[in-house]
Amino acid sequence: MQTVTVNASKQYDVLIGSGVRSLLPGKILSLFGKPRVCFVSDDNVAALHLASLEDSLKQAGLDVSNFVFPHGEASKNPVVLFDLLEHLAQNRFSRKDVLVALGGGVTGDLTGLAAALYMRGMHLVQMPTSLLAMVDSSVGGKTAVDLKAGKNLAGVFNQPELVLCDTDYLSTLPPEDFADGMAEVIKYGVIADDALFDLVKSGNVTDQLEPIITRCVTIKRDVVEADEFDTGRRALLNFGHTLAHAIEAESNYAVSHGKAVAIGMCRIVEIAEKNRLCDAPCSAKIKEALTNNGLPTDTAFSNAALFDAVTKDKKCADGSLTLILPHRIGTCYAQSFPIADVRGLLS
Amino acid sequence: MQTVTVNASKQYDVLIGSGVRSLLPGKILSLFGKPRVCFVSDDNVAALHLASLEDSLKQAGLDVSNFVFPHGEASKNPVVLFDLLEHLAQNRFSRKDVLVALGGGVTGDLTGLAAALYMRGMHLVQMPTSLLAMVDSSVGGKTAVDLKAGKNLAGVFNQPELVLCDTDYLSTLPPEDFADGMAEVIKYGVIADDALFDLVKSGNVTDQLEPIITRCVTIKRDVVEADEFDTGRRALLNFGHTLAHAIEAESNYAVSHGKAVAIGMCRIVEIAEKNRLCDAPCSAKIKEALTNNGLPTDTAFSNAALFDAVTKDKKCADGSLTLILPHRIGTCYAQSFPIADVRGLLS
Repeated sequence: MQTVTVNASKQYDVLIGSGVRSLLPGKILSLFGKPRVCFVSDDNVAALHLASLEDSLKQAGLDVSNFVFPHGEASKNPVVLFDLLEHLAQNRFSRKDVLVALGGGVTGDLTGLAAALYMRGMHLVQMPTSLLAMVDSSVGGKTAVDLKAGKNLAGVFNQPELVLCDTDYLSTLPPEDFADGMAEVIKYGVIADDALFDLVKSGNVTDQLEPIITRCVTIKRDVVEADEFDTGRRALLNFGHTLAHAIEAESNYAVSHGKAVAIGMCRIVEIAEKNRLCDAPCSAKIKEALTNNGLPTDTAFSNAALFDAVTKDKKCADGSLTLILPHRIGTCYAQSFPIADVRGLLS
Repeated sequence: MQTVTVNASKQYDVLIGSGVRSLLPGKILSLFGKPRVCFVSDDNVAALHLASLEDSLKQAGLDVSNFVFPHGEASKNPVVLFDLLEHLAQNRFSRKDVLVALGGGVTGDLTGLAAALYMRGMHLVQMPTSLLAMVDSSVGGKTAVDLKAGKNLAGVFNQPELVLCDTDYLSTLPPEDFADGMAEVIKYGVIADDALFDLVKSGNVTDQLEPIITRCVTIKRDVVEADEFDTGRRALLNFGHTLAHAIEAESNYAVSHGKAVAIGMCRIVEIAEKNRLCDAPCSAKIKEALTNNGLPTDTAFSNAALFDAVTKDKKCADGSLTLILPHRIGTCYAQSFPIADVRGLLS
C-alpha cells in the first residue's frame, strides 16, 4: 500500500493498493468519531461492491445506509443532486455525518458537491472504482453537476477528507473504461514524468497498478497544492482537454472522455510540432503509447469544426485561450493565445 | 457614509448610508475590471429599483442584464437556483463576470449560492434592500436554498466582494418588513451592545439608520471574523433563533422570521430567568423594546409544541442543543444542554 498526503485547504491521505477498502471502517472511526454513513453509488457499482462494504461498516458498529442512482453521465444533474440532498434531510443526517462516494467520476463529482452543500458541509470520503477516478477526479476537490448548457458548469471546490483507491476494484472494470483511465495516465507522463510514460507505453500495466496510480496522484497532488482553485498552474492538467471537450460535445458525448483526451492530445501535439512549439518531437511516441493501451489517436472531426466548439468552452470566455503544450515527453508549458491565433494554429 | 471592512476568507467593504447605490458603477470597475453584470432581483424589488441601477451601469459602459424571479420565500428553491445558473450559461457569462443580488434575504441567499456554483465561482456583490438583509444576511457569506425537508439545508459559505447598504431603499420597505429587521437589530443589542439597545428601545429609529446598521454590521463582522464557518462563536448570532425556527415551522411560515425571532427571544429569556441562567433580569426590557418597534412578544404555541419542532432542527442532530442566553443586556453566552434537559427547561 502507498500513501500520498495532500496539503490543500484540507489535509488528507490518499491510500492506494490492493485491499485498502478494508481500512474504511477504522479510518471512519478515527477521523470522524462514530458518524452515520451514507454510501452514494450508481446501480452498476452498487451491485458489485456495495453490500460487502456496508457489511464491513456495520460490523464496526456504524449506522450505514445508501443512495443509489442510475449509472451514466446523464445522472450528473441538478435533479439527482437534490434528490440526494432531500434523502439526507428526510433521514435526518447531520453535518457531522459522512458521505462515501463509491464509483467513478460521475459519482465522485456528484457526491462531492452534495457533501459541500448539505447543511453547508458534511464529511466526504472518495472511494473511486474506476481508473479515471483514481488517477484524476477523486483527488483535488473539483466537484460539479452538468447544466443543460454544458458539462461541469455548476460546482464548487470541496476537498475530500480521505481517498481510498483499491486496485482490486479495477479487475471488474470493463476494458473500455480501463483504457479511458490510461489516457489520463499517459497525460501525466507527457506533462510531468517521462519515467511514468516509459512504464506504461507498452500497454502492459496490470501488474504495475499501484505504482502507476501512486505516481499519477503524486503529480496531481503537487499541482493542486500549488494552485488549488485553478487560477494558474492547475491548467497544466488540461493537456489535451480543450480539444477533448470539443470532441465530446461534437459527438454528443458518444466519444468517452478518456478517448477524447487521447485524440485531443494527439491533435494538439501535431499542431504544436507543425508550429515549432515543441522542443523535441513527441507526437509519434504519444500515438504509440495510446495505441498500445487500446486508445484512438484520431477522429473524423476537422480542426475547423473543433475550433467552433472550443470557442464555446468556459475557458475562452474572455477572448483568449490557454493551450498546454509539451516541451518534450515529461515536461510541458502553458501559453495563452488570442482566439484568432488559435484559429490560425488549427488551420 | 460608513465603511465596515470584513476580513474573512475574502476581504471586502460594507458601505452604509444614504445614496451609496451611486457608487456601484465605479466600485465594479475598480474591483473587477470591465465585467458583464447580471442583476438578480425579485419582481417587487425590480419594479422599484432595477431600471435606475441598470442605467447607471450602462452609462459607465458596462454590459448589464438581469434575472428576475417571483418574490417570496417559495422562490428560494433548487428550481429557481438552477434556472438562474442556466440563464448565466445560455448567455455565456464567465467566471470573471459579476452577479449583483438586489433585494432582501431570499435574493441574497439565492444569488450568493448561484455565484459560488457557477463555474465554481464568479464575482458577487450584495445590495440589500431590506433592513433584515442589511443588518444580517448580506454580510458573512451564508448562502442557501430551502429543501422540501427544511429551510436553508442546501448551501455554502461564500463571502461577497462588496456590500452596498443604501438606507434610501428602506423608505420603500413595508412597515411590517421594517419591523422584522428591527427584531435582528434588538438581538444585536441584547447579545453584544447595550448602547445599541438603548438607541433603538424607544422605536424612534428612522433618523438613526446609518449608525444603527453600522453597529449591527460591525458586531456581525467581529463574530464572522472569529468564526467564519460557524463552528463555535458564530452561534451567538442565533440568540432567539432556535425557538424562532420552531415558531416559523409550526405556523407553516405564516409568522415572519423577524416576528418569530422577537417571540423566540422573549420565550428563551423567560425560560432563562426562571431557571436562574441570567445574571440580571432583562425580559421586561426586551419586551418593551420589541413592542415599541411594532413587534410581537408572545405566541399561542406552547413550549411543548415548540420543543417537538426544535428537536427536528439541524442544530440538535447529535442529541444536544446549544442555547444562547443573555448574562444581561449587551452580553450573552452559549451553553450546550442534553435534549432531555431542554425539555425540562421548557416545561
